[in-house]
Amino acid sequence: MADTMQTSSDTLATLMQDMGRRARTASKALARTTPEARTAGLNAMAEAMASARQKLLTANTKDMQYGEEKGLSGAMLDRLMLDDTRVKAIADAVRDVAALPDPIGREITRWSVPSGLDIARVRTPLGVIGIIYEARPNVTADAAALCLRSGNAVILRAGSESLNSAKVIAEALRAGLASAGLPEDAIQLVQTKDRAAVGHMLTGLNATIDVIVPRGGISLLKRVQDEARIPVIGHLEGMCHIYVDAKADPQKAVDITVNSKMRRTGICGAAETLLIDSAIAGTLLPAIAAALTDAGCSLRGDNRARSLVPNMDGATDNDWHTEYLDAIISVRVVDGIDAALGHIETYGTGHTEAIITEDTAIAARFFSDVDAGIVIHNASTQYADGGEFGMGAEIGIATGRIHARGPVGAQQLTIFKYVVRGTGQTRP
Amino acid sequence: MADTMQTSSDTLATLMQDMGRRARTASKALARTTPEARTAGLNAMAEAMASARQKLLTANTKDMQYGEEKGLSGAMLDRLMLDDTRVKAIADAVRDVAALPDPIGREITRWSVPSGLDIARVRTPLGVIGIIYEARPNVTADAAALCLRSGNAVILRAGSESLNSAKVIAEALRAGLASAGLPEDAIQLVQTKDRAAVGHMLTGLNATIDVIVPRGGISLLKRVQDEARIPVIGHLEGMCHIYVDAKADPQKAVDITVNSKMRRTGICGAAETLLIDSAIAGTLLPAIAAALTDAGCSLRGDNRARSLVPNMDGATDNDWHTEYLDAIISVRVVDGIDAALGHIETYGTGHTEAIITEDTAIAARFFSDVDAGIVIHNASTQYADGGEFGMGAEIGIATGRIHARGPVGAQQLTIFKYVVRGTGQTRP
Repeated sequence: MADTMQTSSDTLATLMQDMGRRARTASKALARTTPEARTAGLNAMAEAMASARQKLLTANTKDMQYGEEKGLSGAMLDRLMLDDTRVKAIADAVRDVAALPDPIGREITRWSVPSGLDIARVRTPLGVIGIIYEARPNVTADAAALCLRSGNAVILRAGSESLNSAKVIAEALRAGLASAGLPEDAIQLVQTKDRAAVGHMLTGLNATIDVIVPRGGISLLKRVQDEARIPVIGHLEGMCHIYVDAKADPQKAVDITVNSKMRRTGICGAAETLLIDSAIAGTLLPAIAAALTDAGCSLRGDNRARSLVPNMDGATDNDWHTEYLDAIISVRVVDGIDAALGHIETYGTGHTEAIITEDTAIAARFFSDVDAGIVIHNASTQYADGGEFGMGAEIGIATGRIHARGPVGAQQLTIFKYVVRGTGQTRP
Repeated sequence: MADTMQTSSDTLATLMQDMGRRARTASKALARTTPEARTAGLNAMAEAMASARQKLLTANTKDMQYGEEKGLSGAMLDRLMLDDTRVKAIADAVRDVAALPDPIGREITRWSVPSGLDIARVRTPLGVIGIIYEARPNVTADAAALCLRSGNAVILRAGSESLNSAKVIAEALRAGLASAGLPEDAIQLVQTKDRAAVGHMLTGLNATIDVIVPRGGISLLKRVQDEARIPVIGHLEGMCHIYVDAKADPQKAVDITVNSKMRRTGICGAAETLLIDSAIAGTLLPAIAAALTDAGCSLRGDNRARSLVPNMDGATDNDWHTEYLDAIISVRVVDGIDAALGHIETYGTGHTEAIITEDTAIAARFFSDVDAGIVIHNASTQYADGGEFGMGAEIGIATGRIHARGPVGAQQLTIFKYVVRGTGQTRP
């Protein structure tokens, strides 16, 4: 038995290494294609996606059955489910990426120096990107499309729940690439549910993966922290806060809090905790709580919050750490901006944080002192989205502090090189 | 004995954790200081450096004795050695950094979106930077100054050869910070030669170091690859090539090759391998070889090169991998641009690569296909330098492919956040 397992793990290692080598080769070929060729590839991918509709729906039915047997929540099952409309939306999203400006080869800036050298900073692909994600089948297509738009090859690792759907999507995208004369190995999907595959990706498959983009929750975060030996652009959970300051406009506070929590509860930019200044909580918290309750949200508060809204459940320390992704919000009464900043520093994940206030000095303090990819004044946290930022599609919201932060679109999946033009200069 | 070692390694772990915590605290305080306060801190650091001159020279004498006992090469000892002029240069370099524009808090770009939100991308510090470097004492001051200019706290790990000098420099810089009212823990130096300290840094001291910047050779590279669990901005060896194309101007080829190799042999931007197109090697290689020999350089060639310049030593495969940092160059005759690109892809380290040609189409091909931080046409590789690029001081030349590439100055030690200004927007 031990021997069999050893053989099987050797086989996986070999498979993954091979995948890495093929990605590297494809990435080099891709880096030499024109923006027009990549656009044609993306449009062909969208067409192939649309043609695979029936096959994809059949595969998705299998995923749904597996999910039900596994006892996934209704919210999770809803994220997993595909129908005609959603399949069309996936193909349309790929077409939208085809319409985005291609970032590769563009001069970001160009200048001359006293030696007479002409120096340009030019955008280049990162190389081979490994993306590890969960649940939603559309991520397979979105991520692959953005990687192609930015000239990168990609190795995709879908969640086990959506693997059947992801396989059909990846197969269609590869067929699209091939029909457009591009290397189909620029898009590869890990075909096994074996979690050991993630380990191979996190160590970079002997330097054939350049960057890992993890998109997921706390268990993925821990694994990445323990195992990753290559650069990571982290897309981890969004533990987003709304801080309602003493000088908040009451109507804005109600509207923005309800929208931040309830517009869509399952996205990473949904608010999870409401912090409210004790100076205004007495008058404003009951109104906000009532509006949230009316919208179908349940509340879990600290003792001070519960003394103001008695029917609220109690919050434990665990609640301040919990990304519910559901119609639940935790509520804490705090003594002013310093306490709010302290709470966010302790429990925030660097995703999106919002303040509601009419006091511009307090807003400026929040902007300056909150360490997160996105800080918002007087608007919903649900605007944390590449599309809403005008960046086109996004792979997610980066929560780390290196390379990219906030919405990650095609441009954020690039790096640059310096192109130096001389006329024979030697350095004195 | 085993118990003692255990205790000692526990003590080191505790010391390093404590260092990390203090750096994190200092980094938060630093992020809230003004550019003017950081400038004042840098000027105070420069003054304190200058005042520590005698103490530093005494410490450096100890380092030199240790280096001689250890049998360091003359080139290494020269890099280690300080005298009045060099001490003054170190203090002056800190003053130069004080005069650089402060990047923190600047709006990189700002725009509005149809929802009415006003979005700005604003520069922020990375947080706590760990820098691991070798030999040269001035790096201690340069790196610390650039980190302060970019609002970051830094943990410095000097090479064991320069530790005595580094200790005096770090102590002076910390005194300067304190005298300017800034947190002295923004600059900390690892006080032990124990190599286990590097391991603690590479795992991020439980997330109190945000980014590691390694500056060194192949052994450091391997260790970083094996052990690093946090983001790395790699500054690894510069295995730089010059490719002399068939259409090269002969005089430029001679001048640029000699300058690239011999102006200063000990810097990472020095050329280590000359590739020359077989179509021109017969006429041009003897002239280049003679000029290199006249300049005191010894040559190691492949068989084709040796058939053209018979007194050349033979090169082995190992030579194509060797960053000599000395008056030695390896020489290979290649069949055109494709062979040159293939050699560079195999042996290059992503640092700096140069082509000499009058054929602009070939130069464009080289620019597009060489995967390196800096690609140069018709100029010396020794221009690979932040100062020459007009960026002011630099921490080194990044050879990785994430976050920053090429010269890393204060701006490259930053990240950004999105600051979103609303007027009550909720997302439909």
